[in-house]
Amino acid sequence: MTDCVARTFALVLEARGRLAGVVRRTPLLESPLLNRELGLRLLVKAECLQFTGSFKLRGAYNTIAARRPEAVVAYSSGNHAQGVAYAAALLKVPAAIVMPKDAPAIKREHTRRYGAELVFYDREREEREAIGARIAEEQGALLVKPYDDPLVIAGQGTVGLEIAEQLLERGLAPDLVLCPAGGGGLIAGTATAIRTLFARCRVMCVEPEGFDDHRRSLEAGARVAHPGEARSFCDALLAPIPGEHTFALNRQLLAGGLVVSDAEVAAAIRVAFEHFKLVLEPSGAVALAALLAGKAGCSGATAVAVLSGGNVDPDLHARVMAGGAIDPSERAGG
Amino acid sequence: MTDCVARTFALVLEARGRLAGVVRRTPLLESPLLNRELGLRLLVKAECLQFTGSFKLRGAYNTIAARRPEAVVAYSSGNHAQGVAYAAALLKVPAAIVMPKDAPAIKREHTRRYGAELVFYDREREEREAIGARIAEEQGALLVKPYDDPLVIAGQGTVGLEIAEQLLERGLAPDLVLCPAGGGGLIAGTATAIRTLFARCRVMCVEPEGFDDHRRSLEAGARVAHPGEARSFCDALLAPIPGEHTFALNRQLLAGGLVVSDAEVAAAIRVAFEHFKLVLEPSGAVALAALLAGKAGCSGATAVAVLSGGNVDPDLHARVMAGGAIDPSERAGG
Repeated sequence: MTDCVARTFALVLEARGRLAGVVRRTPLLESPLLNRELGLRLLVKAECLQFTGSFKLRGAYNTIAARRPEAVVAYSSGNHAQGVAYAAALLKVPAAIVMPKDAPAIKREHTRRYGAELVFYDREREEREAIGARIAEEQGALLVKPYDDPLVIAGQGTVGLEIAEQLLERGLAPDLVLCPAGGGGLIAGTATAIRTLFARCRVMCVEPEGFDDHRRSLEAGARVAHPGEARSFCDALLAPIPGEHTFALNRQLLAGGLVVSDAEVAAAIRVAFEHFKLVLEPSGAVALAALLAGKAGCSGATAVAVLSGGNVDPDLHARVMAGGAIDPSERAGG
Repeated sequence: MTDCVARTFALVLEARGRLAGVVRRTPLLESPLLNRELGLRLLVKAECLQFTGSFKLRGAYNTIAARRPEAVVAYSSGNHAQGVAYAAALLKVPAAIVMPKDAPAIKREHTRRYGAELVFYDREREEREAIGARIAEEQGALLVKPYDDPLVIAGQGTVGLEIAEQLLERGLAPDLVLCPAGGGGLIAGTATAIRTLFARCRVMCVEPEGFDDHRRSLEAGARVAHPGEARSFCDALLAPIPGEHTFALNRQLLAGGLVVSDAEVAAAIRVAFEHFKLVLEPSGAVALAALLAGKAGCSGATAVAVLSGGNVDPDLHARVMAGGAIDPSERAGG
């Protein structure tokens, strides 16, 4: 491993100290019946049970706790918004969250409930980055990036550290870890922890079809954008290109990338319901989807799938459970 | 506490030893937003995450492991069937499960998948107790009772022991513990552990409207059946009268009984989805339902709700999530 990985692992250990007693050590679950069906030992890291419903709290809290700013700002209408809002509330730092004025009411409401100030912008006429930068400058606020920051990566990496500890407690070593990739922060941190402790474990990223910028970048050996023409209901995994910091780690640590269809993700959501009694959002189910679809080629292995979040609209979830088609209007991207 | 409670607590401690490494220590979860809404600190014991999807594995495994029979038999089409089938498979003991021949295909399939032999009977013309007794006699099989057995009660009581440990780890003492009651095994064991360790904690049972045999019995000071005319979709909580062993404990340990409507249970299933990302079956949601409906009178308190199971038909769950009416044909009982 290079210095970059070693430095990141040191940051993950520091992050664990900051997050102790703040984030939940989410359980690593398995299903004997599902294991038998799959012909492998599958453990799922149920990060949907994290406070705010996703892993995003970890990176946000680690960043704010380490930097101790006067105020914070972030742009997101999704899980990162809730993570930053709740982390800031815990640390008693005012938070402004920049989101499009047409963001769904439920996402606005969730973020507001954690006590953040919402700043709306017009998608057609304004750039969220510019608004975030202006608030950062005017109010001396720290911009908490969604993924491309060493402290954010280190916070998310505590997921990998917990997985490693939880495996060791059971006397297991993993052969394969699958993890979703949007901007690549969760998997960069997780892969850092896993491969530092289990050097021979394969770690692979999973992306929605058409949003496979990590897979393409890993093959090319350099950051490449996805074509940007597809649609997917995995709304947290649509970032156009891997982050710089995240890819510097991922290109060294990952064994490759897998791609799943919305239909395969829907099947994974149903399996999570039946076998684990967990509610998953589409983006949180891609790693399980890749495994169930037999894409990881890991018969007989000990495999871990990171279930990264559970913030899903009940109506969409119900339709996925019923096995019906997903309305294209729910497919973001493109 | 009387000798009966002290003896049961000793059995719970023994059960914990037998169950170590076999059952999952299910997490005790909380939601900061929900706590603020409710004005109390609510912790939920997510026993829906237990292997087989409910707490029933605990009592079944404890009984079979303690008695070491040649074979086992049980009558149930629900969670007890799966618990006994899986426990027997783990202990390599043949299991026969007696269920009505019109039991839903999904329940038959779930039980069969754990390797049990299914024995069907005709509800109209046969008594399941007689069939179970005949198998027990012919095959020398141990009948694993669903609740009214000290070893079953002790196994379920490990739920209470874990709750106590998990509270202490967080520096908390409970003011109130709410737990579903069908035959009363789970709550008898749980109350034994909780009130042995936290003598001043109130423990209350929760039942579906019209199936309030525990509430009536606690008020009468003796076992009383419920009227048996109602319907409820809480299909695991319809036992007609408290067990003898269970009531001997519950009458000493419980502070009273609460009753919830199917609509209140449906609301609790929705809250579990939104705030905890957990899938609950109706019977598993009654304790949370009582709390959300304000029936427990515990403002400002530290309260625990036992979420006892998550084995629910996806279609029924989807309709509960959509807030629609529950088809009377799904309401068992009466």
